Amino acid sequence: MSKNFFFKLKISENKARRGEVITAHGAIQTPAFMPVGTAATVKAMKISDVKKSGAEIILGNTYHLMLRPTAELIEQLGGLHKFSGWQGPILTDSGGFQVMSLSKIRKISDEGVEFSSHIDGAKHFVTPEKSIEIQYKLGSDITMIFDECVQFPATYDQAKQAMERSLLWAARSKSAFQKRAGYGIFGIVQGSTFPDLRKVSSEKLVEIGFDGYAIGGLAVGEGQEVMFEVLDYSVEFLPEDKPRYLMGVGKPSDIVGAVLRGIDMFDCVIPTRSGRTGQAFVRSGTINIRNAKYRDDPNPLDKKCVCYACQNHSRAYLHHLVKANEILGSMLLSEHNIFYYQDLMKEIREAIEEKKFGEFAQKFPQNETLA
Amino acid sequence: MSKNFFFKLKISENKARRGEVITAHGAIQTPAFMPVGTAATVKAMKISDVKKSGAEIILGNTYHLMLRPTAELIEQLGGLHKFSGWQGPILTDSGGFQVMSLSKIRKISDEGVEFSSHIDGAKHFVTPEKSIEIQYKLGSDITMIFDECVQFPATYDQAKQAMERSLLWAARSKSAFQKRAGYGIFGIVQGSTFPDLRKVSSEKLVEIGFDGYAIGGLAVGEGQEVMFEVLDYSVEFLPEDKPRYLMGVGKPSDIVGAVLRGIDMFDCVIPTRSGRTGQAFVRSGTINIRNAKYRDDPNPLDKKCVCYACQNHSRAYLHHLVKANEILGSMLLSEHNIFYYQDLMKEIREAIEEKKFGEFAQKFPQNETLA
Repeated sequence: MSKNFFFKLKISENKARRGEVITAHGAIQTPAFMPVGTAATVKAMKISDVKKSGAEIILGNTYHLMLRPTAELIEQLGGLHKFSGWQGPILTDSGGFQVMSLSKIRKISDEGVEFSSHIDGAKHFVTPEKSIEIQYKLGSDITMIFDECVQFPATYDQAKQAMERSLLWAARSKSAFQKRAGYGIFGIVQGSTFPDLRKVSSEKLVEIGFDGYAIGGLAVGEGQEVMFEVLDYSVEFLPEDKPRYLMGVGKPSDIVGAVLRGIDMFDCVIPTRSGRTGQAFVRSGTINIRNAKYRDDPNPLDKKCVCYACQNHSRAYLHHLVKANEILGSMLLSEHNIFYYQDLMKEIREAIEEKKFGEFAQKFPQNETLA
Repeated sequence: MSKNFFFKLKISENKARRGEVITAHGAIQTPAFMPVGTAATVKAMKISDVKKSGAEIILGNTYHLMLRPTAELIEQLGGLHKFSGWQGPILTDSGGFQVMSLSKIRKISDEGVEFSSHIDGAKHFVTPEKSIEIQYKLGSDITMIFDECVQFPATYDQAKQAMERSLLWAARSKSAFQKRAGYGIFGIVQGSTFPDLRKVSSEKLVEIGFDGYAIGGLAVGEGQEVMFEVLDYSVEFLPEDKPRYLMGVGKPSDIVGAVLRGIDMFDCVIPTRSGRTGQAFVRSGTINIRNAKYRDDPNPLDKKCVCYACQNHSRAYLHHLVKANEILGSMLLSEHNIFYYQDLMKEIREAIEEKKFGEFAQKFPQNETLA
């Protein structure tokens, strides 16, 4: 018999939580970072190397996949797990955020969103029911509700209207979700930077009832300080016995600070996108490998890292590859950064287990700048 | 004690030869195909995967490496083996061909070639002595003489003049080469499509005396038929007891036809370059994975192939990656093609061992078109 989808809170240290999410395709140790596999690939990495990094779950983007190659084709080919070769749990976003940020919006109504594809301009209409159906076809272990995201900054009225529409859509998403053992659906709290809106959004979502709760509408330009403020009060509104997912976050210090505030799950394109532009995360901070000082540096990126690049290549070699626009540069730096993020999550989990996470967070470099 | 550089001819079947080249960094079973690692990377592949493909030797381009990151830096960092992470034998070309094809030539004289870098326009002057010195700094197991290549078609006088200058440069290259156990230097036969020039070039090179002989000036647009004609008479002029290397060749059928005519070594960018444009070599011929018919094809590229892509992914997935311009598409197709080429060489070697290569060559698809 398949196991049900559930969250087990193992250990807490103040607000920080060490837990486990059980899904149809396996368990996820939390706090967890999910590499982003937008178009059914974690960019510039073999899926076997994503697994080697220690990642236990990846994210797929409904918006990208519905446009290309289409959910119907992926379903026909056996689902996103088989199509991408990733055998562990997969979370898919609902497409809500990408529809707003990437496509040309034609019309938003309570019914849904009409938009033009950023790829070929073709017209599409997505409703909560349609988003949930697509995620079903993809075979996601964790389905996200379809929501309306507002830009930052938003006025109170804009934020309220979008939050209220998102609640309508949340209920419709839940109704459209087909229950299967090991598969879950998460609600998404909206409300921008307004505490009372975040509170209403959370309470109403909990009334509808979900397997986990995401905090949406952050990491959209508000900055780390504001984001932490929102987390400080928002997490309080969420139930203890369900996983909490901070969408689209973030830099290493964002993650550490968010775990400190009670978040369990994260996703972000930063490690792979930075890798493709020559930026590496290392235990001493961040380095831009294009910098001339690495031209003759025989050391690995990070002496403590066990990734392929650090075990086999010098900073000088990586500097050369990136300067010469060699694909291998993107490959090695993306993989290194994903290993860095997974190592960070492991260290965070161990620190919570040892009740030393407060100390860990205090020592962690604050609010790093990305070059 | 280090072994000397030498060639052992193990088995012949008519003109086809099954041999072994011993170098400072290991043995190479011939006929051999050398993946091209232009800028100290076989494009879009980890060096560990190049090794897994069965490749025993790779090629580095002196022209590219002298410009970026420079031979001096590579020497300072321990040589090209250490810099690239490739621990097996390395052959470097002399830069002669790339200077002619990529740079802006400013002046050619008997002394050498003055040119401007295609990267930053900087002026460089390369002589035979300089080319050999660079290859020494890189640490090449097999150094190539510095030669002058003419375009195709060339007049008899153009071809004769370049061939004669190349002979002068061959003697100077040999003098500049520092003998070390396990390291060798190859001469390069020129003479375009003129039998008497090829004959003179070969005889004079053999008089100077090299550890192997390359046939240069082919694969420059003359077509397979003309290339085979040149090989038909050119190989006759070369000694039996030295390896023969056909530079810059080629498509699978070129290789099979050249082995049939007595060639032992090959290099070509086709497998990696084709991989980056969506072309795959398979046992049934070539396929362009962009073709719409692969959109929903659940089969691997080639059912007999043991490469990572064929073991893990469908043609439909590769089609999707290439259409979406995902780096992973270039990675998987490049690796597949390098595996295909190495498998082909293994099949060729086995066929010669079993004295069935004539039959193998006859059945092999002729003069395939690259899409």
